[in-house]
Amino acid sequence: MQTLKKSECRSVCPIANALDVLGDRWTLLVIRDLMFLNKHEYREFIGGPEGIATNILSDRLKRLVRTGLIDSGPHPSHKTKKFYYLTQEGKDLLPLMVEMILWGGTYRASPDMPKARFEYVKRHPQRFMQETLRALEAWEAKHL
Amino acid sequence: MQTLKKSECRSVCPIANALDVLGDRWTLLVIRDLMFLNKHEYREFIGGPEGIATNILSDRLKRLVRTGLIDSGPHPSHKTKKFYYLTQEGKDLLPLMVEMILWGGTYRASPDMPKARFEYVKRHPQRFMQETLRALEAWEAKHL
Repeated sequence: MQTLKKSECRSVCPIANALDVLGDRWTLLVIRDLMFLNKHEYREFIGGPEGIATNILSDRLKRLVRTGLIDSGPHPSHKTKKFYYLTQEGKDLLPLMVEMILWGGTYRASPDMPKARFEYVKRHPQRFMQETLRALEAWEAKHL
Repeated sequence: MQTLKKSECRSVCPIANALDVLGDRWTLLVIRDLMFLNKHEYREFIGGPEGIATNILSDRLKRLVRTGLIDSGPHPSHKTKKFYYLTQEGKDLLPLMVEMILWGGTYRASPDMPKARFEYVKRHPQRFMQETLRALEAWEAKHL
């Protein structure tokens, strides 16, 4: 268990302290991109369907690095670029993200949501999480 | 499964559409108060340790009613007051909220977090969820 300093938390409640880092629409979309969509570069995050603005993206990437949920390294082929990846703390958001898929797909589904994929996650959440972690580890083995 | 209209969603992604409703620190703190802390009245939400502002609280309560996660009724003893409670859609956020407790208590714990309570949720998440639902149902049986 990692304990914050008293001055770092506004509440004794773990939900409130989690929300101080996560309670923002764009932060969790960047986590989604890193976790499920194999995106690791600034320009890849920019290209998503939700249209994140460049200043918001820069701010959220910095905050996520500062709070320890993601880390960055120099891009192997472009020295001026960085790549980003989830730390263990970030990867441990996987069960929460799966619950968000399940709730969102149940109550806030777009007519264009890939339904077969959603049903797969719903029926086999553990398997989906294992596959996700394996994909993240495969990327890490290649790049870190 | 409840499907939104195309115009209501910015993305095919269930995470993004969930975050359009949930992606905000205060929204999920109001859900927490209703779900775990047996708070049902405006003045009870105001009294929390995180210090929600009255204008933010009013706005979030209206949004939560509009999006169907909570509902309100006239207070039995004060005709000018309302009480608020979670709908089924709101109650179905319980597994997500439990994951937020587990992640927050692991990585963002306050030194003053009630540790025994956290360990109980961690060891017995199913039992904790059943107890939470039973408490919500007991309140409903008395008030609705």
